[in-house]
Amino acid sequence: MKELNQYRIGILGATGAVGQKFVEILAGHPWFKVTALAASEKSAGKRYEDAVNWIGHVPVPQDIARMKVMPLAPDLDCDFVFSGLSASVAGVAERAFAAAGYPVISNARNYRMDARVPLLIPEVNPNHTALIRTQAWPGGGFIVTNPNCSTVGLTCALRPLHDAFGVDLVQVTTFQALSGAGYPGVPSLDVLGNVVPFIGGEEEKLETEPQKLLGMLAGDQVQHAPITISAQCNRVPVLEGHLECVSLKMRQLASLEEVRQVFERFRSPVAGYGLPSEPRKLLHVFDDDRYPQPRLHALLEGGMGVGIGRIRKCEVLDYKFVVLVHNTVRGAAGGAVLNAELLVRQGFLQKMPAGAGAPG
Amino acid sequence: MKELNQYRIGILGATGAVGQKFVEILAGHPWFKVTALAASEKSAGKRYEDAVNWIGHVPVPQDIARMKVMPLAPDLDCDFVFSGLSASVAGVAERAFAAAGYPVISNARNYRMDARVPLLIPEVNPNHTALIRTQAWPGGGFIVTNPNCSTVGLTCALRPLHDAFGVDLVQVTTFQALSGAGYPGVPSLDVLGNVVPFIGGEEEKLETEPQKLLGMLAGDQVQHAPITISAQCNRVPVLEGHLECVSLKMRQLASLEEVRQVFERFRSPVAGYGLPSEPRKLLHVFDDDRYPQPRLHALLEGGMGVGIGRIRKCEVLDYKFVVLVHNTVRGAAGGAVLNAELLVRQGFLQKMPAGAGAPG
Amino acid sequence: MKELNQYRIGILGATGAVGQKFVEILAGHPWFKVTALAASEKSAGKRYEDAVNWIGHVPVPQDIARMKVMPLAPDLDCDFVFSGLSASVAGVAERAFAAAGYPVISNARNYRMDARVPLLIPEVNPNHTALIRTQAWPGGGFIVTNPNCSTVGLTCALRPLHDAFGVDLVQVTTFQALSGAGYPGVPSLDVLGNVVPFIGGEEEKLETEPQKLLGMLAGDQVQHAPITISAQCNRVPVLEGHLECVSLKMRQLASLEEVRQVFERFRSPVAGYGLPSEPRKLLHVFDDDRYPQPRLHALLEGGMGVGIGRIRKCEVLDYKFVVLVHNTVRGAAGGAVLNAELLVRQGFLQKMPAGAGAPG
Amino acid sequence: MKELNQYRIGILGATGAVGQKFVEILAGHPWFKVTALAASEKSAGKRYEDAVNWIGHVPVPQDIARMKVMPLAPDLDCDFVFSGLSASVAGVAERAFAAAGYPVISNARNYRMDARVPLLIPEVNPNHTALIRTQAWPGGGFIVTNPNCSTVGLTCALRPLHDAFGVDLVQVTTFQALSGAGYPGVPSLDVLGNVVPFIGGEEEKLETEPQKLLGMLAGDQVQHAPITISAQCNRVPVLEGHLECVSLKMRQLASLEEVRQVFERFRSPVAGYGLPSEPRKLLHVFDDDRYPQPRLHALLEGGMGVGIGRIRKCEVLDYKFVVLVHNTVRGAAGGAVLNAELLVRQGFLQKMPAGAGAPG
Repeated sequence: MKELNQYRIGILGATGAVGQKFVEILAGHPWFKVTALAASEKSAGKRYEDAVNWIGHVPVPQDIARMKVMPLAPDLDCDFVFSGLSASVAGVAERAFAAAGYPVISNARNYRMDARVPLLIPEVNPNHTALIRTQAWPGGGFIVTNPNCSTVGLTCALRPLHDAFGVDLVQVTTFQALSGAGYPGVPSLDVLGNVVPFIGGEEEKLETEPQKLLGMLAGDQVQHAPITISAQCNRVPVLEGHLECVSLKMRQLASLEEVRQVFERFRSPVAGYGLPSEPRKLLHVFDDDRYPQPRLHALLEGGMGVGIGRIRKCEVLDYKFVVLVHNTVRGAAGGAVLNAELLVRQGFLQKMPAGAGAPG
Repeated sequence: MKELNQYRIGILGATGAVGQKFVEILAGHPWFKVTALAASEKSAGKRYEDAVNWIGHVPVPQDIARMKVMPLAPDLDCDFVFSGLSASVAGVAERAFAAAGYPVISNARNYRMDARVPLLIPEVNPNHTALIRTQAWPGGGFIVTNPNCSTVGLTCALRPLHDAFGVDLVQVTTFQALSGAGYPGVPSLDVLGNVVPFIGGEEEKLETEPQKLLGMLAGDQVQHAPITISAQCNRVPVLEGHLECVSLKMRQLASLEEVRQVFERFRSPVAGYGLPSEPRKLLHVFDDDRYPQPRLHALLEGGMGVGIGRIRKCEVLDYKFVVLVHNTVRGAAGGAVLNAELLVRQGFLQKMPAGAGAPG
Repeated sequence: MKELNQYRIGILGATGAVGQKFVEILAGHPWFKVTALAASEKSAGKRYEDAVNWIGHVPVPQDIARMKVMPLAPDLDCDFVFSGLSASVAGVAERAFAAAGYPVISNARNYRMDARVPLLIPEVNPNHTALIRTQAWPGGGFIVTNPNCSTVGLTCALRPLHDAFGVDLVQVTTFQALSGAGYPGVPSLDVLGNVVPFIGGEEEKLETEPQKLLGMLAGDQVQHAPITISAQCNRVPVLEGHLECVSLKMRQLASLEEVRQVFERFRSPVAGYGLPSEPRKLLHVFDDDRYPQPRLHALLEGGMGVGIGRIRKCEVLDYKFVVLVHNTVRGAAGGAVLNAELLVRQGFLQKMPAGAGAPG
Repeated sequence: MKELNQYRIGILGATGAVGQKFVEILAGHPWFKVTALAASEKSAGKRYEDAVNWIGHVPVPQDIARMKVMPLAPDLDCDFVFSGLSASVAGVAERAFAAAGYPVISNARNYRMDARVPLLIPEVNPNHTALIRTQAWPGGGFIVTNPNCSTVGLTCALRPLHDAFGVDLVQVTTFQALSGAGYPGVPSLDVLGNVVPFIGGEEEKLETEPQKLLGMLAGDQVQHAPITISAQCNRVPVLEGHLECVSLKMRQLASLEEVRQVFERFRSPVAGYGLPSEPRKLLHVFDDDRYPQPRLHALLEGGMGVGIGRIRKCEVLDYKFVVLVHNTVRGAAGGAVLNAELLVRQGFLQKMPAGAGAPG
């Protein structure tokens, strides 16, 4: 029964690190059922369990393990696709799927800053999905993206502060987990007992994406928020969970207690929508100076929550604090799934008649 | 021959992590010869090799291994002492040694901010040793301190910038190595694959010590430099080498190239003194975006150099860059040894007649 | 309702690493409800959340967090106790509780090799609980122990082989996780990027405990199995999961396929008892040469399963293979909880009337 | 002057992990001077510093950094070559260099078990170089190999035992460092906080190479030693240093003290040759139960020594102990350099007249 009511899902880049997280997260999802896996030519044609170098803690779900991996061509048997593709192929492939009428819920960076593409965090800017109507693909396809993994944590923390006091300047230094680099990613010889103070392209994303996410929808456009961000991004020997040391200046005066309360009292604008992946509580404020920590708290709310700790005065700007986000759940696959759930509730996603194959 | 001309050295806290580094670094030192080891009651009376949980990469030097550990009483057979004591005992013990006429070259934090005690980095503020004359211990004893391990790297980098352009505001986020916490220090269960965003008391030190170090000597006093510093200190699973992400604002405009050149052209004010532990070059500027890294570069110049990399514009302040310092060499024992060498050259340290025992 | 039917549980050593696992595992247990926490004087009198240095991934259960920690005196309000005490205090404390009429389900090593105390793994030797009747405590108290963490994995793997072919000689080299050393346990400076080829007392336990566990109950005694074991125990920088490389000689010839099938077809002798913590399947055989691995598979069956991989011929003895066991779940708290569940089914544990306080 | 007397050296596979160690180790070598670097097409034509992803702790030597990398063709300007090539290309390339008249001192596995090729550890089987005369390359080229990194430690430990008592059976379980897998090698996501109980092809090498190394030269052949070895090889998150847990049975009875003394009194058969890379003492016996450890002791004797610890009775075989060897120094590049030094002393290596270019 239930199956009849589920959306049929395709995963683009299903064998990669993000694709694997999609598989993991969608196992048992009440609304979505994986019916198609697609990956590069190297994997296409193989059974998923043979094609994938599975890096998860729990085994590949049985039914998925035996599915055949398809090539990255837009004729998958599904209602819409999640894209965990790497940026090098996502540009062409996602466009092809959208042009063929597929909604593409993407984790890739290629279209994030495209003015017609929503860069979406449901708790932050749910109304930005209005941009979908500006996408003029034949057949009803569209692209929606979620932000870079390091952007998500920062932006979730900034949302209530920006609403309450207006954020002006932000300094952020990141401690990013290895899984953010995909698989095989960072060689162990480079990072064991070490820190690498550089992640290519990361600082640019972290300095610009929050401006779009926190921007105002005005007609058919998003006006980027006038927040100046300076980012310093580093790789640390941690498996999951990006930690970020943030310092910021706000346009309006606020006491430490007010800042703390604005975090504590934040209520998601989509809290009533019943989205299965939405955390009960987005922002978790820690009072223990030692927290949050990646290994202990990345899985807050199943990895969909954001930890905030060490809120205190900054000698140079106004306040400083620490943010923690699970980079491959909230910061990637889980964020995309939540985006899809919002799109369902907003009426942007349709189920095809059974047996209809691809949309469009 | 050589031995006759060497200073006889005592090490306070000889079995601790810093004390061990003193032992390691002083092996083969041309001017200094360890003649006394002192530690807490638990160790006193034992042979050093039996008392110590040796954590170094090379074995305990043979002659040191068999020395008897003495209690922390000021009657050691030596010309002066290095102190690697923990703060909980350093206050009383160092004062007792100074009062008994021993020069105390200390790594502990207790007297660092005392207005009569030089907080010393030879390349940064060699003239601050003039404060010694304000110390009124009977018998000629005195205390000189070196800064906190995370302070050293930052301050060495700030010195030439402050001289050239006047540093106004500094944001610094640290990635601190485990050895900075001493031994046993951080439990492995707390930090393996993790980051701990808090180190007790560390931010306060990093926000104030550079102000004294970069201050001007005016008569009998040091006028602290008017630099505002905001620090966020974190422990990472790295053995040696504190990495620091720095962002700063200067009082005077300067181009990126000027900033870079100021680092490159920095020349130590004590370069001509022939101090054995002074690095050939203090500041090493890296052009490779991935550098410096703790594991690869902490041992620059035998651990006495400071690495600087990723110099670039900051969107919020003026410039940002990465600093690396070896926390237990330059940031602790090695820094103290270099301090002692400077004090020799400046005439503050005297050799006792052979067989005279303790000074004072 | 449910609460009325639950056994009331005390935890001895509740703030230690094993005690914390008891708290974690018993949250939501259908039969057991924690009603008392006891620990050393340092913690007694505090609220649990204030006394504990919580090292788990999920927060302390709310109701437990606020419970008051009691001293280690045998007047706890509970039907029986789990002991996660360290060996230095377990001897006296467990005896005191047993003498006061409390059943003590212990994870400590003190009474494991006592001839009257069952050393118990439900799937391996459920009938050894008959030894309880040889314990002559006034008031009905008794002690039951579970084996050392490294013993459990090995013994579970040996059980079916010993039944089928008779195990004669065993060589085992362990790769033991940090959590096996408790908290604070191994200093990070000792073990980051390192292996420590020694764990005090561990080899002795691993060489003798399996002999008792695999022994035959004869009347009031257990005749130890005539298996010769040589163990080499090592600490590795892994958080959870002991890996063991095993090589063995059997009394009876068997083909590689027979060995494999004996593992695959093993059926727990208590499979029909409906014990909540019993894994669906105890032994999981991996065909992928790279498996099992601690980080990926320690949580097999919620940490109660045992992984076996790389089954192959040994050039010196008969066969060799790799065993993986979760050291703090199956190898400690989880094993003890399963023991208690078996004791419930076997009728050894009684519920006190509500409000009766302590037993005895 | 000195330069005129040095052998001119080529390095095959100069940009790989082993090739880099050759570069590092040969810097300042009294007999050898690197005059040619060769690598795959990807690197050929570039300056070394641009072609290499340098993973060492100290910077690339200045003169080497600017050398041009040549293709893998046998017309290098040098007297002989070291090969750090991977097995996939070493077979063809080394044969081509030997056929062109170059002596090839190889670290690759391809020709190790070839009956005409010496598998050489100078302290173990220096007379096996007699096999060189059975190689019939036109022009005087030949191939000499050093063993697999995990073989070296074990075999050095077995040599004196085999001489004194006759080794019969060996069980060995390894804890192998990441650098043994080359670069990029093991992905950090696979091995951080983990153990991988499989290294492709490693167990076979460790079970057979010691038989050849400990074999007797009889005429033109080496008769392999009749020692049965069973190996279990594992990757651990350690940077450098393979630790091995060994258990063995000997043909002749010996006391624990005799075994210990045989290790302690071992004297290298080439001790008087003055080979620059030969360790002062090959076997270092540790009395501290916790030693040897990879991070603390891999660099024994500059990485050319072998650590032995925990010598004790084995319940199953006769004795067990722990062996430690630096896998990329003694176990790879350093071992090859020592081999070349022996070949110089034995007269197998000739200097070409200056300007003569390639040999042959």
